[in-house]
Amino acid sequence: MVLNIGVIGTGAIGREHIGRLTNTLAGSKIVAVTDVNQEAAQDAIATYQLDAVVYPDDISLIAADNVDAVVITSWGPAHEGSVLAAIAAGKYVFCEKPLATTAAGARRIVDAEIAAGKKLVQVGFMRRYDEGYLGLKQAIDNNEIGAPLMLHCAHRNPTVDERYSTDMAISDTLIHEIDALHWLIDDDYKSVRIAFPRNTKNAREGLRDPQIATLETKNGVIITVEIFVNCQYGYDIQCEVVGEEGIVKLPEFSNIVTRKSGKLSQEILSDWKYRFTRAYDVELQDFVDSIKTKGAPQGPTSWDGYIAAVTADACIAAQTSGAVETIALDEKPAFYN
Amino acid sequence: MVLNIGVIGTGAIGREHIGRLTNTLAGSKIVAVTDVNQEAAQDAIATYQLDAVVYPDDISLIAADNVDAVVITSWGPAHEGSVLAAIAAGKYVFCEKPLATTAAGARRIVDAEIAAGKKLVQVGFMRRYDEGYLGLKQAIDNNEIGAPLMLHCAHRNPTVDERYSTDMAISDTLIHEIDALHWLIDDDYKSVRIAFPRNTKNAREGLRDPQIATLETKNGVIITVEIFVNCQYGYDIQCEVVGEEGIVKLPEFSNIVTRKSGKLSQEILSDWKYRFTRAYDVELQDFVDSIKTKGAPQGPTSWDGYIAAVTADACIAAQTSGAVETIALDEKPAFYN
Amino acid sequence: MVLNIGVIGTGAIGREHIGRLTNTLAGSKIVAVTDVNQEAAQDAIATYQLDAVVYPDDISLIAADNVDAVVITSWGPAHEGSVLAAIAAGKYVFCEKPLATTAAGARRIVDAEIAAGKKLVQVGFMRRYDEGYLGLKQAIDNNEIGAPLMLHCAHRNPTVDERYSTDMAISDTLIHEIDALHWLIDDDYKSVRIAFPRNTKNAREGLRDPQIATLETKNGVIITVEIFVNCQYGYDIQCEVVGEEGIVKLPEFSNIVTRKSGKLSQEILSDWKYRFTRAYDVELQDFVDSIKTKGAPQGPTSWDGYIAAVTADACIAAQTSGAVETIALDEKPAFYN
Amino acid sequence: MVLNIGVIGTGAIGREHIGRLTNTLAGSKIVAVTDVNQEAAQDAIATYQLDAVVYPDDISLIAADNVDAVVITSWGPAHEGSVLAAIAAGKYVFCEKPLATTAAGARRIVDAEIAAGKKLVQVGFMRRYDEGYLGLKQAIDNNEIGAPLMLHCAHRNPTVDERYSTDMAISDTLIHEIDALHWLIDDDYKSVRIAFPRNTKNAREGLRDPQIATLETKNGVIITVEIFVNCQYGYDIQCEVVGEEGIVKLPEFSNIVTRKSGKLSQEILSDWKYRFTRAYDVELQDFVDSIKTKGAPQGPTSWDGYIAAVTADACIAAQTSGAVETIALDEKPAFYN
Repeated sequence: MVLNIGVIGTGAIGREHIGRLTNTLAGSKIVAVTDVNQEAAQDAIATYQLDAVVYPDDISLIAADNVDAVVITSWGPAHEGSVLAAIAAGKYVFCEKPLATTAAGARRIVDAEIAAGKKLVQVGFMRRYDEGYLGLKQAIDNNEIGAPLMLHCAHRNPTVDERYSTDMAISDTLIHEIDALHWLIDDDYKSVRIAFPRNTKNAREGLRDPQIATLETKNGVIITVEIFVNCQYGYDIQCEVVGEEGIVKLPEFSNIVTRKSGKLSQEILSDWKYRFTRAYDVELQDFVDSIKTKGAPQGPTSWDGYIAAVTADACIAAQTSGAVETIALDEKPAFYN
Repeated sequence: MVLNIGVIGTGAIGREHIGRLTNTLAGSKIVAVTDVNQEAAQDAIATYQLDAVVYPDDISLIAADNVDAVVITSWGPAHEGSVLAAIAAGKYVFCEKPLATTAAGARRIVDAEIAAGKKLVQVGFMRRYDEGYLGLKQAIDNNEIGAPLMLHCAHRNPTVDERYSTDMAISDTLIHEIDALHWLIDDDYKSVRIAFPRNTKNAREGLRDPQIATLETKNGVIITVEIFVNCQYGYDIQCEVVGEEGIVKLPEFSNIVTRKSGKLSQEILSDWKYRFTRAYDVELQDFVDSIKTKGAPQGPTSWDGYIAAVTADACIAAQTSGAVETIALDEKPAFYN
Repeated sequence: MVLNIGVIGTGAIGREHIGRLTNTLAGSKIVAVTDVNQEAAQDAIATYQLDAVVYPDDISLIAADNVDAVVITSWGPAHEGSVLAAIAAGKYVFCEKPLATTAAGARRIVDAEIAAGKKLVQVGFMRRYDEGYLGLKQAIDNNEIGAPLMLHCAHRNPTVDERYSTDMAISDTLIHEIDALHWLIDDDYKSVRIAFPRNTKNAREGLRDPQIATLETKNGVIITVEIFVNCQYGYDIQCEVVGEEGIVKLPEFSNIVTRKSGKLSQEILSDWKYRFTRAYDVELQDFVDSIKTKGAPQGPTSWDGYIAAVTADACIAAQTSGAVETIALDEKPAFYN
Repeated sequence: MVLNIGVIGTGAIGREHIGRLTNTLAGSKIVAVTDVNQEAAQDAIATYQLDAVVYPDDISLIAADNVDAVVITSWGPAHEGSVLAAIAAGKYVFCEKPLATTAAGARRIVDAEIAAGKKLVQVGFMRRYDEGYLGLKQAIDNNEIGAPLMLHCAHRNPTVDERYSTDMAISDTLIHEIDALHWLIDDDYKSVRIAFPRNTKNAREGLRDPQIATLETKNGVIITVEIFVNCQYGYDIQCEVVGEEGIVKLPEFSNIVTRKSGKLSQEILSDWKYRFTRAYDVELQDFVDSIKTKGAPQGPTSWDGYIAAVTADACIAAQTSGAVETIALDEKPAFYN
């Protein structure tokens, strides 16, 4: 009852998932790896002492008989091809974001999956597995706060490196809220505006930071997300849902409480990796378990990947236009209900 | 060294101020009262056991030799006339909001005060005297969080009565943020938009609730204020200032911490009166003390009242237009620097 | 309707009360002052611009016709004599702690007051006027947590000066808990033990710090109070009441919330004066108001002062004996019910 | 590189560990089970779909060639025999508390392990793997609060079943603090007293609840632990360490923050199982990993099991005597340094 997994892409995130599946989670075995850099693939096997074979490319790895599922952690532009190949081969897929770099590409995956007639694909949006978000969702679903009316969110990083550009505030940062928030309130986005407040002096030349995204949903919920990637003080994710009867909010990241030098304080994380460590674990364990017990992954689908791609495109257009941009989603295929 | 005060308007708020000046604060004495309802004025004297004279109208009260300062707590449309009369008579004025019901009216008061050559007027915006706001201001002024970039605020009431209309979300509710926030960050408003999220089912027919006001300042600070006057759960004022180096936020209203029935909880106020009780006290004490020790009130000025009037007008226009409305302030007279 | 007050003792705390009564509170006037140092008394009049007379001693001040009430803020050993003289003269008394330096002295005051047949005396235990303690008391009295079973308390100062001795941890520090806690749970103390944990290196030579007092009440409630007067980090008062059905606890002192440099923090006070500023105000205002409206002060009585004296004696004995010391109170006179 | 495990005892906790090792953790395989009720053992295999053999007793299971390590989750009185047998066979042991039901039994295990010359045994005290306790320990070890002087702790359950007796407040409840606290501050216990406050009406007839244990360590640290197993409101574990320079405290259990019906609240757990779910996972994963990578478990040792046994005996004696009972530990064998 062990799920045999092939890993496509053995860079940083690929290695993290290899380590997680091998040393932390139950029920899977990595039997195949590949990378455009074949030495990197070999090195991953050595480092994690895997009993696995290096394949020359994604196609041959996907074709291997003993590979039940693939984990795609290559660079973004390669995702679409690997996912389509895996679907064609009837193999399960865990694909890190983005599912595809264009909305059209994501739509092609959706269509391929529908044509294959079986849900095979899970996209790596881990926030849905975070206990805080799950708590919010449970409260909303249990009608504890009535219908959601507004969401106030923030996504803050202490700093970003020099390659980080203004549009990456959408494609790398806001993308997590884009997926998590429509899932949270079970609604679809309708439009978006992006506003640029006074720029922080701590942003490198040319980078607009902070930004405020205002999304509106089909049900009229207004969502504001502050994106601030040079906030200096820490990695901080905030989400508050205001409903007709009450409000629920993510807890602060749990940490010991200190009284010292005139301050009552708790530490704030500086590194984003630790914020969702557990969500990453639960996400991949759920991928493995769901395939075994339900015959299909239960996490974010190709359709969610498509929603993220369309929404991100509109957000990036809104950065330039300064106007309200429509988020025009195709009608949701019954396959994904 | 007692400041002799005349009170114009002995309705609810007038009586509160009479009680406060008589039974809670030091250094003043109410020597004169008037009200369009003369019986109400008599009754106030009896209730608070004042050693005071009832005058037939504001003009005669202002003219009384022993009146050093007037507290104006009549209904809004009467404020401008009383303030102008007091300025003409060289008497100090504490005027409850609004200073005038129109921007033009507020401007007339500003001009009269400048012509009189002496600061006489304080407008009753009490939040500037709240310890929480003062703490935020001190942190900002001490450069503890760098330049402010964004403010996230909320003004929530559990319910409102049936006379409350959509525009009162500006003139009665947001008006407090309008005054407090530009003072807090020492900046001027440039424009405003109002958005209407999905309406709460708890609002009476015809009332748009909640609303989100997005103000932009001359320095590019973007301020979002959620106005939600049927939030059900309590009276709740939130204000968070995001700066280049850190964030400061109002504390929750202080209350004992309870562990009971599976909950760790603190009470939230249901009645707005208790939220700023102390700020009202400090505000009026400061009015009295400043006149005695500095010869002029030190609180919100006529100019602040003018800013509030112009800004509120733009906000109400924005409710209807759905567009970004410019907030066009006259140049600030040197008199108010 | 102004209460005329004479102040006996114009040292630091005397001046604070003079300032408070003159510049902050309503309804009283300081008409007389005295001090063993007559120049100090003259200076107080000048500083606070009082319309008051300097008397040569407490006896003559108490005898003055226009003195309705006295505030006793002389040094501790002088309190008993002044209080007894005021009772003899039928004047109201607000006496700073201690009411008397011995239990016998406190008992003499109790007896004198009973003999006089009228409640005249309030002891300056201000915690009963603190909003936090009042919130705890209300919750207990409303039976929100069932019968109290245990109290966990802490009284921490950042540092103390070199005159502070081990027994002052009782007479100057714990004394506030001694008064507040029996009032809070409406119970009487039965016994006490004092334990000395490992000493902090930050205590001066010879001072035992911290200490833990364990009090038991007639109803069997066990109260532990940590006394730690060199805790370095701030002035911090904690009180948690564990009841049969739930727990209530004092809130942290309210302060703005800051996110900065990897910390989510609130400031802790360093100076005890600010912790109970408002309680001091409310306490004295209540003294003034109660005399006017109810003909007697409603705060801590002479009997409470007696309880404090007897309990403090037992605590100091327990410091030396290391044993459980009985707190032997006389039967409560009906006069104080 | 898979650790083969035999499980002795397939009751509730045994099944939990079987599920955990099989479905949640990496790197182990359950190859053998036994139980005095052989059907229960068979049923565990069926339920968890194990590829494992049922053995007639602990001795035969321990003897099985393919068993690398045993998990002992039988009833307490059987632990000592199984542990000694495993040590004799040179097999690794994870033994649920208690290591032995008597101090003498625990000492026999210690002696056997020393004689075997290899650390083989880990006792199931999971709190050392809780992130909160680890955070406290790190702060203390980093000297962030100076030398510890006092600990204030509470162990509260909402209710207990009717079999729960006064001494189980030690052997089943306080036992967790007994292990965790000496580890936390790296100190040894010297003495203990138990006090009984007023009993809660919610305790069944005959049960003394709450209790307060006061432990003193060799370094003079005083530890108070409130044990309150009918607190009604929830399962709540508190631990505060007061040091010379500051204080650290466990965080509240993390949960979403709700504003509703006049309350700002977070849920408190009602079921103890959820409080340390993650600690149980980390504990067992560490057992498995440490054997593989370091050749010996790194968690609580037999010596820690012995300390717990001796200390619990003294605590139970103190319940009856009402006196300070000495905790007389043998000298720590160098083997455990």
